[in-house]
Amino acid sequence: MENLLPNIRGPEDIKGLTVKQLNRLAEEIRQKIIAVVSSNGGHLASNLGVVELTLALHSVYDSPRDKIIWDVGHQCYVHKLLTGRQERFATLRTFGGLSGFPKPAESVHDIAETGHSSTSISIALGLALARDLNKDDYSVVAVIGDGALGGGMALEALNHAGAQKIDLTVILNDNEMSISRNVGGLSSYLSRVRTDPKYTRIKKDVEFLLHRIPAIGETMYKTMERVKSSLKYLLVSGMLFEELGFTYLGPIDGHNIAALRRILRQARGLRGPVLIHVVTQKGKGYAPAEANPAKFHGIGPFCVETGTAKSGGGPAFTDVFAEHLCRLAEKDARIVAITAAMPDGTGLRRFAQRFPGRFFDVGIAEQHAVTFAAGMARSGYRPVVAIYSTFLQRAYDQIVHDVCLPRLPVLFAVDRAGLVGADGETHHGVFDLAMLRHIPNMTVMMPKNCSELEQMLEWGVRHSGPVALRYPRGACQPLPVTLSGQPLQWGRGEVLRDGRDVAIIGLGPTLALALQAQAELHNRGISAAVLNPRFVKPLDEELLAQFARRCGRLLVVEEHVAAGGLGSAVLEACAKLALAPQVRVLGIDDCFVPHGQRSQLLDWCGLTVENIVAAAVNMLSGEKAKSGREKKA
Amino acid sequence: MENLLPNIRGPEDIKGLTVKQLNRLAEEIRQKIIAVVSSNGGHLASNLGVVELTLALHSVYDSPRDKIIWDVGHQCYVHKLLTGRQERFATLRTFGGLSGFPKPAESVHDIAETGHSSTSISIALGLALARDLNKDDYSVVAVIGDGALGGGMALEALNHAGAQKIDLTVILNDNEMSISRNVGGLSSYLSRVRTDPKYTRIKKDVEFLLHRIPAIGETMYKTMERVKSSLKYLLVSGMLFEELGFTYLGPIDGHNIAALRRILRQARGLRGPVLIHVVTQKGKGYAPAEANPAKFHGIGPFCVETGTAKSGGGPAFTDVFAEHLCRLAEKDARIVAITAAMPDGTGLRRFAQRFPGRFFDVGIAEQHAVTFAAGMARSGYRPVVAIYSTFLQRAYDQIVHDVCLPRLPVLFAVDRAGLVGADGETHHGVFDLAMLRHIPNMTVMMPKNCSELEQMLEWGVRHSGPVALRYPRGACQPLPVTLSGQPLQWGRGEVLRDGRDVAIIGLGPTLALALQAQAELHNRGISAAVLNPRFVKPLDEELLAQFARRCGRLLVVEEHVAAGGLGSAVLEACAKLALAPQVRVLGIDDCFVPHGQRSQLLDWCGLTVENIVAAAVNMLSGEKAKSGREKKA
Repeated sequence: MENLLPNIRGPEDIKGLTVKQLNRLAEEIRQKIIAVVSSNGGHLASNLGVVELTLALHSVYDSPRDKIIWDVGHQCYVHKLLTGRQERFATLRTFGGLSGFPKPAESVHDIAETGHSSTSISIALGLALARDLNKDDYSVVAVIGDGALGGGMALEALNHAGAQKIDLTVILNDNEMSISRNVGGLSSYLSRVRTDPKYTRIKKDVEFLLHRIPAIGETMYKTMERVKSSLKYLLVSGMLFEELGFTYLGPIDGHNIAALRRILRQARGLRGPVLIHVVTQKGKGYAPAEANPAKFHGIGPFCVETGTAKSGGGPAFTDVFAEHLCRLAEKDARIVAITAAMPDGTGLRRFAQRFPGRFFDVGIAEQHAVTFAAGMARSGYRPVVAIYSTFLQRAYDQIVHDVCLPRLPVLFAVDRAGLVGADGETHHGVFDLAMLRHIPNMTVMMPKNCSELEQMLEWGVRHSGPVALRYPRGACQPLPVTLSGQPLQWGRGEVLRDGRDVAIIGLGPTLALALQAQAELHNRGISAAVLNPRFVKPLDEELLAQFARRCGRLLVVEEHVAAGGLGSAVLEACAKLALAPQVRVLGIDDCFVPHGQRSQLLDWCGLTVENIVAAAVNMLSGEKAKSGREKKA
Repeated sequence: MENLLPNIRGPEDIKGLTVKQLNRLAEEIRQKIIAVVSSNGGHLASNLGVVELTLALHSVYDSPRDKIIWDVGHQCYVHKLLTGRQERFATLRTFGGLSGFPKPAESVHDIAETGHSSTSISIALGLALARDLNKDDYSVVAVIGDGALGGGMALEALNHAGAQKIDLTVILNDNEMSISRNVGGLSSYLSRVRTDPKYTRIKKDVEFLLHRIPAIGETMYKTMERVKSSLKYLLVSGMLFEELGFTYLGPIDGHNIAALRRILRQARGLRGPVLIHVVTQKGKGYAPAEANPAKFHGIGPFCVETGTAKSGGGPAFTDVFAEHLCRLAEKDARIVAITAAMPDGTGLRRFAQRFPGRFFDVGIAEQHAVTFAAGMARSGYRPVVAIYSTFLQRAYDQIVHDVCLPRLPVLFAVDRAGLVGADGETHHGVFDLAMLRHIPNMTVMMPKNCSELEQMLEWGVRHSGPVALRYPRGACQPLPVTLSGQPLQWGRGEVLRDGRDVAIIGLGPTLALALQAQAELHNRGISAAVLNPRFVKPLDEELLAQFARRCGRLLVVEEHVAAGGLGSAVLEACAKLALAPQVRVLGIDDCFVPHGQRSQLLDWCGLTVENIVAAAVNMLSGEKAKSGREKKA
């Protein structure tokens, strides 16, 4: 039988297919996605869960005229395959290839770069209100998972949308998971709607009873009328959404294409905001992913037959963090751990297993996670809040207002700081220093290797104020542990190499680059010092002053935007100390960094040994250093 | 009759009072609050609304053993009067006096500095879970308004709390207002609960009917049993909250002390999370505030007899912004305006009246406001999102991810930038430059006077990317409009005074200080230039280089934390240009600034003409400039 997928050049090509053909197509799509993700890594389970839903959406709606917005867009692979990108699909998540998220620059079918969770209803509502102002009449559909729906801004948007008499469809893709299993009242509610016979039986039951009530007397009659008029209100199963102003349809099997098409057509004909409750299974159609959807949420390359991940190098910072936190928690009962729906990604799963009473997964709710931690810290606990750098952006105000203002001892384990690789521009952790460094009472640090991470964690949970401990994804370029002899002191850095001509100040992974550059400079007769500040805030001003005076030249290398980061901290400190050494900052230019392998991205950003050497040489020759990107342009 | 209030030294003193006495006390409290707020300014309407509720809370619960957390703590005046602070109450919101918000440093009865909205349930849940880990048994109560409950993080917290089997009471203070009238599906829902007879009648009705059903046959019996067991579930009026896992009590009249005490005692006896729905009237007991609660939400000094505000000087930046935006919107149909529950504070009320179809109040939902704006911008509109600097902190991630990454033309009208005065540490807008400046694609500017504000607004709504236009509260120290001759150009600053020895770089209100300092320096024979960068990003590097070379000394003066702001931008630019002038930054030290009059706070921060002069003189003499706070210490 000929494959159908190669003939699908756009959504129009699936409109004529029968349900049987669509089901065959679904199977082909699954195979294609499994093949590419097993090779490139990516988000597998969520995409396998939405194959039929995506097919139904594109067969009922007319994209790009109708707008489909994918919340946490990593569930967009099927959509990409159906919208003219199957030939490039093998380039998924590779440098210069297709993004793992929707990207308007790639296709008119992609509405927004939805890398972070819970944004789709807000975007959809903006589009829908704009459409009405323009007197246009296309459909706007937001597809959002039950986990993402628990995120504060999605609830804000639901609240706003429900009060508007506006045509808008929200598809609740309910798979009982966000990334790991969902938590929260909303999730329990959805689970009851799906499974509790009360919800479906009650309507029939009450009608059955009402028919049996002897209709006698005026009171009786009036009461019955009142009850009947309330029945619709009382007996729909999606009452919570109806309360907020939505028409609720469902729950419906998200793997039944015919049923999905029927309900989508019905929704399309309704006025006002509609919520369709679709029940899907994460990992559907691939046994290892069905069995362990959390593992196959975001995964590196794996073996298709067995589902075993291909190994990825040395121990990751995440693992070292998680393991050491457990050791510390053994000895210190004040330590509690908090995650926002990422027990696996942050490594806290093992903490949860060992200290279930001291572990809290609050769901996709970074804002609440931080202020909740503040509440525990006020009661004498030492909360460790592990959130990826890019997602911590959601809680900036809570960090300022609820943690730093009262100077509470909350430790932020800022995982995935720096370039994260294949997830790309929505996921790099390259703003956190600028976001955190200016907040009063905050301490910000980054270790040079896993051993220093342990030291910092141990110091951090004992510190009496807020601490942000950032560390990179994976095991990227750690320095040898032999470099970890010096004890950690608040606000004190260390000298990794002494030197006379220029002091290179690195941070975390860029220290490895700095040391290589130092060796290269040495070969050229230039004596470079290499400094590890350890603390970005408070910065070691004494060390800085010493080398500013000794070398007269400071070269800062950071895997972070050049504005507001370590380089700025160095410049501010020099100004404050009334020192005016030559300072150069090699950081990420003022732009968003694309996806690709870490090494490719470092190169793209100009964060290379070659550029460090060139910058140092230029400083010594007094010439203006060019950044890597200028050089390439 | 002797006054009761003077004898209330703490919550224990109201426990023995009769309801009649409590009502008398309520009246005294109202008079006291009206007297002090009419003189000092403050939040009036919300406090008048919670007099009875606060009395009931303190007569039933044992603060500080039991923890009462006031959401958006400006409703804490009654609480302050009842917890040992009535003698200092006349100092409310004055420099060195009582804060207008809860403040643990002031009293053990204040649990958290809740200046921003929607944080109370998160804090309460943190306290409650910590209590259980400690095996303590006190009560934890969060008091939250219906407006604040619509804020995303409150919903996140409600969702998390509802799923915990934890003793926790949330008091929903439902006054149908956040700051202005509430919007959203949740608000309509609450309004139905309050007013729709269906909700209260239906329970009685169905029970009435069930009693009349002839109990015949097995089917009939089973069905009835099922229905009865579902009744509790189906027929409570606060079903939405019950769905999320809370026991719902109410709605109840929030001005009936006896009823309030009964329901609070009942809640105290219940296990698990409880939500009490209390209906109050904002401004209760003071006719002008009852008639116009939005006006009396936050108000300056006013005449008690008439309710007329005492005048506050020249036209505020807010007014000029709002007026000019309307003029621009007349000519440009793409302009739409968005507020997060602040149509009055941001001045957008007049836009709403003139262009109702193009105005959107999304409620206390800054995150959604920003991403919703992004949706409209994607459809060709030019959204102007007016949010106070301090509240915009809530939407940092949305600004990065939903607006700046796709480079959408959203204009952020960042009102209340800089020191805001009496609202104090939770409300100063002194982090926004650091928060916004490092985001790629963002333009950040601040005008020197109202005329430049108009220019910038006009330029901003035409610009093809994201723009943050920040301006201060009120009419603080604007420069004469005669200084506004030069046309606005992207990334170009202007020279206000030429000079040879030192270039003073101010921004907005600090330019007035800079000009005064320039005159003073002139008298001392020092030739100071004064530069207005207009754009903090992109910074005018050409202008900077010119004066760095001419003067060799740059003195930056900014009403913003010294880390990450304009000073850092200047330092970064110098480093990039390989210039090494002497640079000094006079900004706010690394701390939170208290409340008080603007002039007192400027002095506290060392942002004075005297310090600018001293810093310039010191730079010329090569001596290290001392900051204002160092001098005082």
